[in-house]
Amino acid sequence: MYDVVIIGSGPAGVSAAIFCARANLKTLVLGKTETSQLVLAHTIENFFGFPEGIKGHDLLGKGVKQAKKFKAEFVAETVVSARQAKEVFEVTTEKNKKIESRSLIIATGIPIRPSGIKNEEKFVGKGLSYCVSCDGFFYKGKKACVIGNGNKAADEAIDLLHYTSNVTVISNGGGFEFSKEFDTELNKRGITLVNKEAKEFFGENFLRGITFSDGTKMDFEGVFMACGESSALDFARELGVIVENNSVVVDERNMTNLSGVFAAGNCVGRCKQVAANVGEGANAAVNAIKYCGSKNLYMDYAVK
Amino acid sequence: MYDVVIIGSGPAGVSAAIFCARANLKTLVLGKTETSQLVLAHTIENFFGFPEGIKGHDLLGKGVKQAKKFKAEFVAETVVSARQAKEVFEVTTEKNKKIESRSLIIATGIPIRPSGIKNEEKFVGKGLSYCVSCDGFFYKGKKACVIGNGNKAADEAIDLLHYTSNVTVISNGGGFEFSKEFDTELNKRGITLVNKEAKEFFGENFLRGITFSDGTKMDFEGVFMACGESSALDFARELGVIVENNSVVVDERNMTNLSGVFAAGNCVGRCKQVAANVGEGANAAVNAIKYCGSKNLYMDYAVK
Repeated sequence: MYDVVIIGSGPAGVSAAIFCARANLKTLVLGKTETSQLVLAHTIENFFGFPEGIKGHDLLGKGVKQAKKFKAEFVAETVVSARQAKEVFEVTTEKNKKIESRSLIIATGIPIRPSGIKNEEKFVGKGLSYCVSCDGFFYKGKKACVIGNGNKAADEAIDLLHYTSNVTVISNGGGFEFSKEFDTELNKRGITLVNKEAKEFFGENFLRGITFSDGTKMDFEGVFMACGESSALDFARELGVIVENNSVVVDERNMTNLSGVFAAGNCVGRCKQVAANVGEGANAAVNAIKYCGSKNLYMDYAVK
Repeated sequence: MYDVVIIGSGPAGVSAAIFCARANLKTLVLGKTETSQLVLAHTIENFFGFPEGIKGHDLLGKGVKQAKKFKAEFVAETVVSARQAKEVFEVTTEKNKKIESRSLIIATGIPIRPSGIKNEEKFVGKGLSYCVSCDGFFYKGKKACVIGNGNKAADEAIDLLHYTSNVTVISNGGGFEFSKEFDTELNKRGITLVNKEAKEFFGENFLRGITFSDGTKMDFEGVFMACGESSALDFARELGVIVENNSVVVDERNMTNLSGVFAAGNCVGRCKQVAANVGEGANAAVNAIKYCGSKNLYMDYAVK
């Protein structure tokens, strides 16, 4: 029986593990660090404390080492289901391992839905990115595009204008579905819209452009994927945790509607920055520590 | 005229500066880094990415270097007042410098109110601390106390039980003012209450105990100050920013009730951890960048 089981081993989950283990909670982290989006990030330049930048893989490695130092346990298995019996939670891993815990912190992140465009994986971190506010800086003054047909793509394209004036949005076929407000803003800002289906990314070591299914090509030095996000939160729903817009709903303590179940990081759907995720992990942990230590007092914190 | 002026140069403010400057906003940070609580912290063990721990002073230095790399400007002056004229904010520094900006991020932290107990400053980081969830770990199994007479002190004492069972709360004279719930919990958990006025901390290199004004002494290896917090937010109130319980009120974007005015870190009064403050700074910055880039669209983000 653990005090806290953390589902997800990205920056939010590992940051939470550091705090929980350091406070002497029996702490288990479930998940595969190599699937964290942070590992895909070539260089992180905006995480406080690393003026020279740091590779995503290295940063996550440091965090894991830090959590292990305080005796957090790590098991590299994903969670397939979770249920509650009174004040005990039971999670089941992909290998059908049953694990009990007094509290849970959900930090599964959000898996990127593959676009189906050829070579997507090949160019990740080499001209292809999933987050303008993370990586826009690397494309200063360059020709860049956003792939996606909805408001998320429009939002990313407008943010991209902070870094370069040469911005195109590619629908990937099937037309655009912008809200009226985004449509107006895209027009006003001179963002080019291309309603074509992308077939393949081309380039050598770095991405150079896109081949469309009609055989035409366009050159780009940067591509931002904004095709939409799918959710890994089925098991959370199963538990009875409220999920809205593919995000777990939490309060200021990062607690869900279920007492003892917290959530942090990208699965909460707020600011998708490593810094913000690490911070949310810390907040969830501090409140999980309070929860494990003083259940009777818990309402007191809620009313403040 | 700046795009964003950040008031406060602790981890929240500097993290925000990294993001804003990196997004090409003309960014100014006002404040004295040496007054940040982070600088007082002897060793930070729970900030993600530093498995060996790092001195507070060094961590803040790295952040400042990182923000300067992206051309954030720093002026080591505190802000004494702030006002708004249409969509422009004007802040006045202690040297009566007037600075204009399109947006503001308030990250002033919360100054510690000195207790008046002799040698308080001498033992900071050497047995004397201001935050159990930050430093409780260093007092595992040791005799420790919390100084303070209200619910904040009770809360800290209960948290301290995660690290040691030998916990005393010292009122510093004038009796205790716990809520009924906290009073019950303190009793139930066997926490000793001492209603005496502390006069002096004693020890050599490290704190060893407290001398009271009645001449008696008690030995402690750890003291946590929880005498209450005073607010540096008078200028925020002057601007019309809503402040409740000595904390700036913000929404999920870390925006205050005033459009274009954001707040992050301890002055928001949530989780007082470096990790959480860095994360809030990032979130405030990401939304300030959106605000500066697309005012017309702003409501769209609000309704989501």
